[in-house]
Amino acid sequence: MTFETRIERTLMAVVDRCKDPSAPKKLSAAIEYAVFPGGSRMRPRLCLSVAQACGDRNPSVAEAAAAAVELMHCASLVHDDLPCFDNAATRRGKPSVHSAFGQQIAVLAGDAILVLAYEALLDGAAECPELLVKLFRILSRSVGVPGGIIAGQAWEYEATLNLAVYHRAKTAALFNAAVQSGVVAAGSDPTQWRNFATRLGEAYQVADDLRDCLSTPEELGKPTGQDSLHERPSAVSALGVNASVKRLGCLIEDALASIPSCPGQDELKALIKTEMDRLTPRRRSTYAA
Amino acid sequence: MTFETRIERTLMAVVDRCKDPSAPKKLSAAIEYAVFPGGSRMRPRLCLSVAQACGDRNPSVAEAAAAAVELMHCASLVHDDLPCFDNAATRRGKPSVHSAFGQQIAVLAGDAILVLAYEALLDGAAECPELLVKLFRILSRSVGVPGGIIAGQAWEYEATLNLAVYHRAKTAALFNAAVQSGVVAAGSDPTQWRNFATRLGEAYQVADDLRDCLSTPEELGKPTGQDSLHERPSAVSALGVNASVKRLGCLIEDALASIPSCPGQDELKALIKTEMDRLTPRRRSTYAA
Repeated sequence: MTFETRIERTLMAVVDRCKDPSAPKKLSAAIEYAVFPGGSRMRPRLCLSVAQACGDRNPSVAEAAAAAVELMHCASLVHDDLPCFDNAATRRGKPSVHSAFGQQIAVLAGDAILVLAYEALLDGAAECPELLVKLFRILSRSVGVPGGIIAGQAWEYEATLNLAVYHRAKTAALFNAAVQSGVVAAGSDPTQWRNFATRLGEAYQVADDLRDCLSTPEELGKPTGQDSLHERPSAVSALGVNASVKRLGCLIEDALASIPSCPGQDELKALIKTEMDRLTPRRRSTYAA
Repeated sequence: MTFETRIERTLMAVVDRCKDPSAPKKLSAAIEYAVFPGGSRMRPRLCLSVAQACGDRNPSVAEAAAAAVELMHCASLVHDDLPCFDNAATRRGKPSVHSAFGQQIAVLAGDAILVLAYEALLDGAAECPELLVKLFRILSRSVGVPGGIIAGQAWEYEATLNLAVYHRAKTAALFNAAVQSGVVAAGSDPTQWRNFATRLGEAYQVADDLRDCLSTPEELGKPTGQDSLHERPSAVSALGVNASVKRLGCLIEDALASIPSCPGQDELKALIKTEMDRLTPRRRSTYAA
């Protein structure tokens, strides 16, 4: 079964519980709308790839962990798009959740998807309580305070911030959780994977900053130029386009070099290369100098 | 040690992790502000009372469960007060979180406290993975979709709703979780406690509806008359004041009669009576007819 099938099937099973006839219909619809169709599903694919590279000893636990990480990502997108934050009218090529369902349902859908992430983990890993405890800890740290994605978003409202700390929390934390969860679900030791996860998370943030600056809304399915519009710190504003592209290349090389020795090392390397190539925006002539 | 001390100590320990120097300061401050000082802490006191009535075999697990339920309640208050919902300027006798910290930090603080609830449970029950799995399930059901407090709030945006279903989700679900968690933490069987929890939750909702209609903002520390202002379904709008007071009395009697036989049955009955007496608003002469 492909990673894609495993991810969508797991997400569908957990989102289905929200479609129970006893649930309020708008909220159920908004939850499904926020989760399907997905974007690149990069984080859950990373989780399953790493689990597979480590031998994938508990495939259903890995699937639950992958779904949980993706649901946390979906929840954060719903809230980040709200008028008080990015005020983004579109997401994944369609109206954002608050544009389609109103602000109230969007706040509640974000909250509900966050809870759903924990339920996904519980559904898939309840039979392995020891793994469940570890996975709950990894997931919570990557989302909460002090160092998770919620804290990362909150850094934007501080008078001063450290770009590395901000990016680590806002983006790398959940990548880190995807990698660590994959390793833990496969019954391996996550400490060896820390460098890989950190470099990859940072690379993704730089790629995202570059895409926000160089891509079109049609290419991304969401508004672009947001970092500059919201005066948000970004790799591009700190380093410029050319140095950011160079930095991205170095981070990808570092990430690939940090993959620990494991049975599926070569397949994982190939997947990361393809993924990062897809994410690196083609520079237009105006920026090519 | 009193229930109050056990609850505040557990909440402080979990909120302290958000005050790590590496966390964004406004968010940390907003989280602490939303949790302390508390309101009546009714849900965690209920959880510990029930655990004690059942023999309190795992006191630290009961404390973790009590803190988790209270944190879910605090998170819901922060989001419910937002301008797009109740637009409440005050809560617990001081400015609401969004009034004090802005909307963005309030949305993020609500999200972070929700995650913190799971972390509280994890901290206190990680040594008892089997209990942890049960408590996670109880907590998630009481908060998420289809029947938890988030779904309860979302019912307000449906064209039609059943008042009992709405109240069960909006209020009774978390009372139910407080009771069930206390029973489970003590190692007892929660099925016998279902009627008690349901009646008590419904009683609290009726009392809350009456207080919204009959009390002053000074008495409650938050705006009153909100159900009527937001055209929200309530026991008072459905039944009128007098029938609601009568219904409240019946629900309290039913709840007390539903307490299963257990070592601390009498103490629990006394506590519920005192609590419900405190919550029942004294009727003013204009309503006394």
